[in-house]
Amino acid sequence: MDERKILDLIEQKKYIELKKELAQMNEVDVAEILDPLDIHTTLVIFRMLPKDLAVEVFAHFSPEQQRDIINTITDKELKYIVEELFFDDMIDLIEEMPANLVKKILVNAKEEERKLINQFLKYPPNSAGSLMTIEYVDLKKDMTVKDALDHIKETGLDKETVYTCYVTGENRKLEGIVSLRKLVISDEKLLIKDIMNEDFIYVNTHDDQETVASVFKRYGFLALPVVDKEHRFTGIITVDDIMDVIDQETTEDFQKMAAMSPSEEAYLDTGVFTLAKHRIIWLLVLMVSATFTGGIIKRFEDVLQSVVVLTAFIPMLMDTGGNSGSQSSTLVIRGLALGEISLSDSWKVIWKEFRISIIVGIALAAANFVRIMIFDTVGIWVALTVSITLLVTVVISKIVGGILPMIAKRVNIDPAIMAGPLITTIVDALSLIVYFTIASLLLHI
Amino acid sequence: MDERKILDLIEQKKYIELKKELAQMNEVDVAEILDPLDIHTTLVIFRMLPKDLAVEVFAHFSPEQQRDIINTITDKELKYIVEELFFDDMIDLIEEMPANLVKKILVNAKEEERKLINQFLKYPPNSAGSLMTIEYVDLKKDMTVKDALDHIKETGLDKETVYTCYVTGENRKLEGIVSLRKLVISDEKLLIKDIMNEDFIYVNTHDDQETVASVFKRYGFLALPVVDKEHRFTGIITVDDIMDVIDQETTEDFQKMAAMSPSEEAYLDTGVFTLAKHRIIWLLVLMVSATFTGGIIKRFEDVLQSVVVLTAFIPMLMDTGGNSGSQSSTLVIRGLALGEISLSDSWKVIWKEFRISIIVGIALAAANFVRIMIFDTVGIWVALTVSITLLVTVVISKIVGGILPMIAKRVNIDPAIMAGPLITTIVDALSLIVYFTIASLLLHI
Repeated sequence: MDERKILDLIEQKKYIELKKELAQMNEVDVAEILDPLDIHTTLVIFRMLPKDLAVEVFAHFSPEQQRDIINTITDKELKYIVEELFFDDMIDLIEEMPANLVKKILVNAKEEERKLINQFLKYPPNSAGSLMTIEYVDLKKDMTVKDALDHIKETGLDKETVYTCYVTGENRKLEGIVSLRKLVISDEKLLIKDIMNEDFIYVNTHDDQETVASVFKRYGFLALPVVDKEHRFTGIITVDDIMDVIDQETTEDFQKMAAMSPSEEAYLDTGVFTLAKHRIIWLLVLMVSATFTGGIIKRFEDVLQSVVVLTAFIPMLMDTGGNSGSQSSTLVIRGLALGEISLSDSWKVIWKEFRISIIVGIALAAANFVRIMIFDTVGIWVALTVSITLLVTVVISKIVGGILPMIAKRVNIDPAIMAGPLITTIVDALSLIVYFTIASLLLHI
Repeated sequence: MDERKILDLIEQKKYIELKKELAQMNEVDVAEILDPLDIHTTLVIFRMLPKDLAVEVFAHFSPEQQRDIINTITDKELKYIVEELFFDDMIDLIEEMPANLVKKILVNAKEEERKLINQFLKYPPNSAGSLMTIEYVDLKKDMTVKDALDHIKETGLDKETVYTCYVTGENRKLEGIVSLRKLVISDEKLLIKDIMNEDFIYVNTHDDQETVASVFKRYGFLALPVVDKEHRFTGIITVDDIMDVIDQETTEDFQKMAAMSPSEEAYLDTGVFTLAKHRIIWLLVLMVSATFTGGIIKRFEDVLQSVVVLTAFIPMLMDTGGNSGSQSSTLVIRGLALGEISLSDSWKVIWKEFRISIIVGIALAAANFVRIMIFDTVGIWVALTVSITLLVTVVISKIVGGILPMIAKRVNIDPAIMAGPLITTIVDALSLIVYFTIASLLLHI
């Protein structure tokens, strides 16, 4: 694919050649090239695409471009898109469009589809239900393999996936699943019920998308059936949609760990006020918490006044404590998210962090002691005070950083909250108390 | 799947029932139940599994369990596993086993396979080559659709995937790909060359796995062909292996962003010394950098001594600056990793962060001013000094946090380095300079 070449053809209005080139390209690439163009140019080119490619390209446009296209095309063209769009893409589209366009879309949908759309829009955001599609291959257990393959031959082009087929019985009960691989390598005369897998794994419409993603990762499936509360088969989720979920969930974790409210929108597409709103609350909370640390300094003002040089080591102690704690909490938060660490591992984590912190703490304290003795002129007792504080701070930070995410998880708070910023605030206060206490003892203040 | 039930059957040695239950289960679940058991129990049960399931279960065991099994089973049994294991699982296995067992494995592999193993072991870790498998369906362009389907029927069971088939010509040149969906819905008499897709997307053996993952995410593929430097078709990568890559790459980003050397091993499986080693270098670097911040305090000691209360606000200013900067850098680092932000967006990022920082900074400064005036007794000039410093610090932090990851990317350093810990250290120094300068001006010290 050569984007430059396509853009040249568009500019020179060489439409015959352009049409030929585009028809061979992947829909994702076509959408990316057309998306930034103005609506008139896009529409001219969009209309010359082969019809099935056009629908796929449409699904990959940005909401803005989709909106402009729906506003401009004829009802007949819209009807075709509405009919051919995969159901999950349709739901995504409707969720992004303004009310008047949603109405225009629904008018062009069939009665039955309209009902389904309304039902699907009710699933909670980020639930399995909100990820489902309904274009699956539906088999019956008394079909032969040949019947099944013929059925796929007839209907397969319109299905989101044909590689896993679903065997349904009365009342939309899911009785088994069978892979296309199995169908293709099996004797044509065998019955579906003899080759189907009845011990299949499924998820529920109200399961969180994070749960769904972990099932996909665990088993390496290409698609997963979804059943509702009454155990009726409602739809399927395909692996390509799960890749987006994984990225989205990870981004949320990153945001929470950096003390922001999570957001699904891409950074450059989000407005300044929205971004500010997402950041301000946590900054306020942490700012107010940090004033307690200031309160500790005030309480020990006499210590500081008699040995003013102690102030100069406060940033280093606070930063090192914060960084040590963040390291531990990050590893534990990530381990919990990936399922590598479970709540029953709490003591293992504490014991591990304790031993690590002793090693790290001694190394840092020693390095710090040497540095102070060589480059500073503060005397051995101040150097000792700072170095011992450093060791104690690292130990406390690492244990606090390791255990707080576990506690959060146990009381059903998202462990990602217990990351760098919050840990730093907590550890700052603790390290200053340690610092002034040790200073009082060693320096006899 | 009921783990308790299986464990009970094992304990009661009800092997007939156990065998029946296990045969219906997913290999991932069987491996998880057997993995923690002692080698003798595992082996008894492992040997009663249907042969094809046994190989799949083996691929999901932990390296320790795999080692014990290889040490214990007969050469005949090992030969079967070696023959039936998918090639990518075989490479993973060999990379994990000690030298004597690698030898035992290679002795039981066929001459041709042994050569291939040696070739594959040479691909750089985390490259496309290291993720490949060689069990793909190989078609020729002059086959009919029926020929192709018959070929899949014969060989499909041993292929990692049959859903994308690869059409190869002379000198292992990849001429096209064709999906099983296309084969199944096409007329049996058509020739492969008439239905194959010649504009397929591929990766190179030496491409980084992060590149491969982004191709999978972009196009939603189930498998991707890999070609070597001479453009010969060498293997395929399947989407299930890419899910692990995505998690692994994200974990590395988390680790770097929390100032640790990246590691692929799970937290609980990593030794205390290794974990300490991964954490200590960055802590040392940041600790030494923080002493510069201490130097700034020392330079302004006279300011502090005349208004000691200023010291009490240092933690709050430093923390808020660090948190503001981390928020910005986290969003930019993540945006760069997902490809949502590119280097050409630098000015957009700066301008956006500037506007956000003004909103956030004014809000925080106002809240802080009110808080000091109500709860503290330091007077309006100190309150003003602290609040103005806060505003300036937030603006500086957000711009530094937004732009440093972009600069890192431009000079080919991993942007993830420019996260919270490093940003905090830089911002600490800047905010203290601002603080003391404003204090000197407003308080006439």
